[in-house]
Amino acid sequence: MRDEASIIARLSRIVPSRIGVWPSRGVPLGIGDDAAVVQFPRGCESVFSTDAFVEGAHFLTRLHPPQAIGYKALARAVSDLAAMGAAPRYFLLTLSLPAGKAGAWLDHFARGMARAARRFGIRLVGGDVSRHTSVVAALTVIGEARPGRALTRSGARPGDALYVTGHLGAGQAGLELLLREGPRAIARHPDSYSLKRHLYPDPRLAEGAWLATNKFASAAMDLSDGLSTDLARLCAASHVGAVVHASALPLVHGERPGSRRAAAPREDRAALRRALHGGEDYELLFTVPRRLASRIPSRFHGVPLTRIGEIVSRRGVVMLDAGGRIRPLRPLGWDHFAPK
Amino acid sequence: MRDEASIIARLSRIVPSRIGVWPSRGVPLGIGDDAAVVQFPRGCESVFSTDAFVEGAHFLTRLHPPQAIGYKALARAVSDLAAMGAAPRYFLLTLSLPAGKAGAWLDHFARGMARAARRFGIRLVGGDVSRHTSVVAALTVIGEARPGRALTRSGARPGDALYVTGHLGAGQAGLELLLREGPRAIARHPDSYSLKRHLYPDPRLAEGAWLATNKFASAAMDLSDGLSTDLARLCAASHVGAVVHASALPLVHGERPGSRRAAAPREDRAALRRALHGGEDYELLFTVPRRLASRIPSRFHGVPLTRIGEIVSRRGVVMLDAGGRIRPLRPLGWDHFAPK
Repeated sequence: MRDEASIIARLSRIVPSRIGVWPSRGVPLGIGDDAAVVQFPRGCESVFSTDAFVEGAHFLTRLHPPQAIGYKALARAVSDLAAMGAAPRYFLLTLSLPAGKAGAWLDHFARGMARAARRFGIRLVGGDVSRHTSVVAALTVIGEARPGRALTRSGARPGDALYVTGHLGAGQAGLELLLREGPRAIARHPDSYSLKRHLYPDPRLAEGAWLATNKFASAAMDLSDGLSTDLARLCAASHVGAVVHASALPLVHGERPGSRRAAAPREDRAALRRALHGGEDYELLFTVPRRLASRIPSRFHGVPLTRIGEIVSRRGVVMLDAGGRIRPLRPLGWDHFAPK
Repeated sequence: MRDEASIIARLSRIVPSRIGVWPSRGVPLGIGDDAAVVQFPRGCESVFSTDAFVEGAHFLTRLHPPQAIGYKALARAVSDLAAMGAAPRYFLLTLSLPAGKAGAWLDHFARGMARAARRFGIRLVGGDVSRHTSVVAALTVIGEARPGRALTRSGARPGDALYVTGHLGAGQAGLELLLREGPRAIARHPDSYSLKRHLYPDPRLAEGAWLATNKFASAAMDLSDGLSTDLARLCAASHVGAVVHASALPLVHGERPGSRRAAAPREDRAALRRALHGGEDYELLFTVPRRLASRIPSRFHGVPLTRIGEIVSRRGVVMLDAGGRIRPLRPLGWDHFAPK
């Protein structure tokens, strides 16, 4: 069995890190002391978010490969920085795990996290490991934003257009596929878009930074718990309501993973349900003042930007369906503590 | 049962927090968005540390009152800032807990954390709650230090004098009392120094800041896993060795809690074992260049500062006992993953 020091050393060798004394480049002191010391560039604001990734609640070790768990633990925390339009810089990891997972499992976990860290340009500067009956990874991510440019949830105004990046429902579709077929689904569907989004989500960092830099968005957040739940949060923070056009939603169609073509009505209903209430899409939900809406292209670096509705002054979120009916959109997305 | 939003709202009402938009005072955006936004004063360095406080590993809910768990979760994280000589500013909390603990238990936990936050002058700026089979609190603390003044572990040099704050072994003695007598020990021994240090440790913030500001310490760290283990870490980081004088150690004497008087030889041996290998003292271990040792008083604001040995060039940690014998001091303190 390994001891704490060797676990920390191993993690920080595999994951892009600042270790020990760095006389320059913004981190005078990295991993290995009581704390890390960071210098932020003058005139920037620091952006902080924290997120726990918990066995049983967010993933299952019998179902999810350790690489994906390590990758996703960091990706979902970084998604909060994307939602602020902030640039990722540093992160800290507290990892609780059973002794039996401190060997090969941990190496795979670290490799997945390393892949995410390289992709997002973020470095590990501190951490803590302890023993527990199950795996709990808590991540704190630190980013930078230009003063006053961070994208908040509270700036949406009546008349603003409502947008999402990418497609909705993929995270949920990938989870359903994995639950249905078990771990072998991963080898069986190597090209599944849904499975890829579920296991290795790609926070919309470039899109968030572009919205913030150009001041296009009046409000933004990332979709982690499902559109119906997250849109209600954005509206509550902005003291507004919203109308969602069901026919405009960029669905992931079909039970078959990866397929995005039009589908039979039953499949359509399932796709709509996933898009509205499925969690873990890690797409951005954002609002744009009407006068700026013409500046939003239909794609940004290949990622669709879709107008799905508008902000209204009347509180509450409603949906306009294909038949022209308006009905309340209840928040039926993910809530850890909601009555089941 | 409560939902996530109400849990977060409740936590942030009880614990000193920055909630929502704060146009000034260093936190443009607090709890409630995807992330918090912080402005650091010009010319300061930011100090980060993260720490998990885990049911089963660090505390037992059948033994430890929720107030003490909330207090200590924050205190032990802040102790890492004390060890850097940094001033605490902000913290983030990720809390995983069973649904059954989301009511009264959580309120008591939050009140304990609030007491710690007020005492240490630190504010909650972000968090995340999720459901889990047991309680895991991961804290990230953020402090400020003057550039180049943070106290590291790596600056000890041969000839430096070795010091500790306070008394050693109290944390372990308090734990032993609690394990022996159960939760009723708390009402039974209201004046127990050991129990107080075990349940409500007091990070040495003033002492750390004083050492850093005056550049008295060449190296420092906090004692969380026991002197024998932590001193070995400081020596490894500084590429030096150390000699500890057993007779100089500021022990907590006696099986009777709170007593610090001289004791019978058997009690003395137990006190020495706790001081050397007992964890969770949260005192500071620091080294002082010989020419500055005369500047270190025997007490600082009532807290003893005790010279317990010196740094030597020969690697390894040895102890000089009362009989004049020198023997190796093996690191027998706390390690979550060490073979038992």
